[in-house]
Amino acid sequence: MAVESIQAEKLAQAVELLDEQEIDCWLTFVRESSETSDPVMKLIVGHDVTWQSAFIVTRAGRRIAIVGGPEGATVRRAGLYDTVLTYDEGITPTLREIMREIDPGQIAINYSVSDVASDGLTHGMYLQLVEALADTPWRSHLVSAGPIIGALRSRKTPSELARMRKAIEITEELFAQVTAFLQPGRTEAEVAEMLHAEMRRRRLEASWAADHCPAVNAGPTSEAGHAGPTNIAMQPGDLVHLDFGVAYEGYRADLQRMWYLRSEADPTPPASVQRAFQACVDAIEAGRARLNAGVQGWTVDAAARASLTAAGYPEYKHALGHSVGLATHDGGPLLGPRWPRYGDSPERPIQPNSVYTLELGVATERGFIGLEDEVLVGETGAEYISPAQRALIVV
Amino acid sequence: MAVESIQAEKLAQAVELLDEQEIDCWLTFVRESSETSDPVMKLIVGHDVTWQSAFIVTRAGRRIAIVGGPEGATVRRAGLYDTVLTYDEGITPTLREIMREIDPGQIAINYSVSDVASDGLTHGMYLQLVEALADTPWRSHLVSAGPIIGALRSRKTPSELARMRKAIEITEELFAQVTAFLQPGRTEAEVAEMLHAEMRRRRLEASWAADHCPAVNAGPTSEAGHAGPTNIAMQPGDLVHLDFGVAYEGYRADLQRMWYLRSEADPTPPASVQRAFQACVDAIEAGRARLNAGVQGWTVDAAARASLTAAGYPEYKHALGHSVGLATHDGGPLLGPRWPRYGDSPERPIQPNSVYTLELGVATERGFIGLEDEVLVGETGAEYISPAQRALIVV
Repeated sequence: MAVESIQAEKLAQAVELLDEQEIDCWLTFVRESSETSDPVMKLIVGHDVTWQSAFIVTRAGRRIAIVGGPEGATVRRAGLYDTVLTYDEGITPTLREIMREIDPGQIAINYSVSDVASDGLTHGMYLQLVEALADTPWRSHLVSAGPIIGALRSRKTPSELARMRKAIEITEELFAQVTAFLQPGRTEAEVAEMLHAEMRRRRLEASWAADHCPAVNAGPTSEAGHAGPTNIAMQPGDLVHLDFGVAYEGYRADLQRMWYLRSEADPTPPASVQRAFQACVDAIEAGRARLNAGVQGWTVDAAARASLTAAGYPEYKHALGHSVGLATHDGGPLLGPRWPRYGDSPERPIQPNSVYTLELGVATERGFIGLEDEVLVGETGAEYISPAQRALIVV
Repeated sequence: MAVESIQAEKLAQAVELLDEQEIDCWLTFVRESSETSDPVMKLIVGHDVTWQSAFIVTRAGRRIAIVGGPEGATVRRAGLYDTVLTYDEGITPTLREIMREIDPGQIAINYSVSDVASDGLTHGMYLQLVEALADTPWRSHLVSAGPIIGALRSRKTPSELARMRKAIEITEELFAQVTAFLQPGRTEAEVAEMLHAEMRRRRLEASWAADHCPAVNAGPTSEAGHAGPTNIAMQPGDLVHLDFGVAYEGYRADLQRMWYLRSEADPTPPASVQRAFQACVDAIEAGRARLNAGVQGWTVDAAARASLTAAGYPEYKHALGHSVGLATHDGGPLLGPRWPRYGDSPERPIQPNSVYTLELGVATERGFIGLEDEVLVGETGAEYISPAQRALIVV
């Protein structure tokens, strides 16, 4: 299984991060992870567990798993944890014994107020953990693992990046099929069905829920946002917008592309549409120019936002960009405005080797224009790892 | 969408349960529910949301959704909530306004210490909610929605039951294909691949993660438990065991079936195997005879456990049965022993119209024997809704 090497890489990286952040112990506490899912499981375990389970990484480099009896074989076979302990009736005695052994100062646990990809611990499980550690010194040592998980997800390894580039490449192949498919009379739903059929044929997984992956918007009456494709049929002179991506070995692509359907009156996109398109391109570029390791994401968002409004267009009502990886919204620092719903995620420093979307849009009289490409944050700035769209595709 | 009517049914049922349990308000608080999933979303919303969202049901029968701007259209289109409010920057002002309007005594929120299917609130989101309600009277009115969600999931409506029967019927069709497929030399992995190919062909969803759905155990060297199928090849004289199910319109089946591969020496199953098989049947029947609405699940488990040990076999190291529905492990009261890891779920009264698995197994020298069927708890006891296996299938 190719993904196992990813998890081994990420666990090695986790030890470095614990040292960097001076945390003795990182504890991921989960149960029935197929039902109440913790996004970090894909990164450090690679399969779901049923019973209460603890996955522990220490600053000294130990990796300890405590899982239910029937799941010991699976965890041992994966070979990611050097110590695999099992229990039948309850996890508490073993967990306390291990804590006694490690005697950690801080224990970072899998929750975060502002970073959803680091917030897999349910409140019921938090209460169980507090109960399990009652009357021990470690009860008061619990802190959020948000900074560890955020950095771990953000800092892509070379093999993660290879997978992400492949996911983008395949998504671009599918976009080329869309170009061949679009014609007046086609509905949004037909475009989605064509892509879904192709994905089934090639056994590709959508980057997000298939009912709105792709999102398709044809012409000015279509409502852009998170709704699924409708029976609206595209007409000559319409813009067509797709928000779409597929996964490769678990790693997701997230891109938006734009088409223009030529009409007799307007065989090329009207000037007003061209202007709006260029304003989107310029705003994304303004953001990209500001993006670098160590900066705060809100400054990147603000640069793009200022560019767009200076060109006379309204602000987009979301963040400029999010980290992408094993999850489409991969958590960590956000390229977003300092709005309450984003918590402190726009203020945390951008990590080196992270991959971000840059995305924004404006409404026009021919339909919604939305652009989204992906960039890699390197040593000296951010570079596109997807072929950034710089002109409308005219069909 | 057929599933919409299920959600409307469950929301109507929720109002009855709020009245029965004397709770003014049930609040489900989620974000990015495709990443950190709350199992209750399938029951009362039917799609994922990205931004912080609140789904509120009141004892007076109001249904209020507060969602991010781009998601308003989707929620309105579904028509499940009579009031749909949207926000751009933060949910807190709208949430506080609605609480002021309702002024609830108790507010049941989506967490539970012992019931995983009622425990979708992450700890980070809990802290957000506490912060959002800081300096209000409602801050101190928060209680677990476990008893509401548990009963809501448990009490199947007629249309839910129709879907569950259909899921069982399709799973039985696939078991019949397994019977035709089994022969000496086939590996566990080949059985799984055959079923996966058939599921792709018929566009069926597995009841749990496909890498161990089906679980396949061939012969005495195969390790029963939660591990995936291996390259172990079945031999004449082996037992073959499958744990498997598919979903129909979201509702899951969860069944175990047993085959015996005839050998020259033993054209029929040896007496020791027959005895063990019968002990499993008898133990399941002992549990079923005890199961009724209002009883505590641990007493049902204890009856089966006592039957099995009285026959001279070791105890199974799990619960006798769990509720099934939209989730394979559908939460609510458990037919399990009073072990710490089950919390109080074996002590809560069984709900009328709930569907449970009855499952247990023993190891033999020819392989693992595991049986699992599903029963509906009616007015006067529990009746099978799957064709309970009462003899080994000899191939």
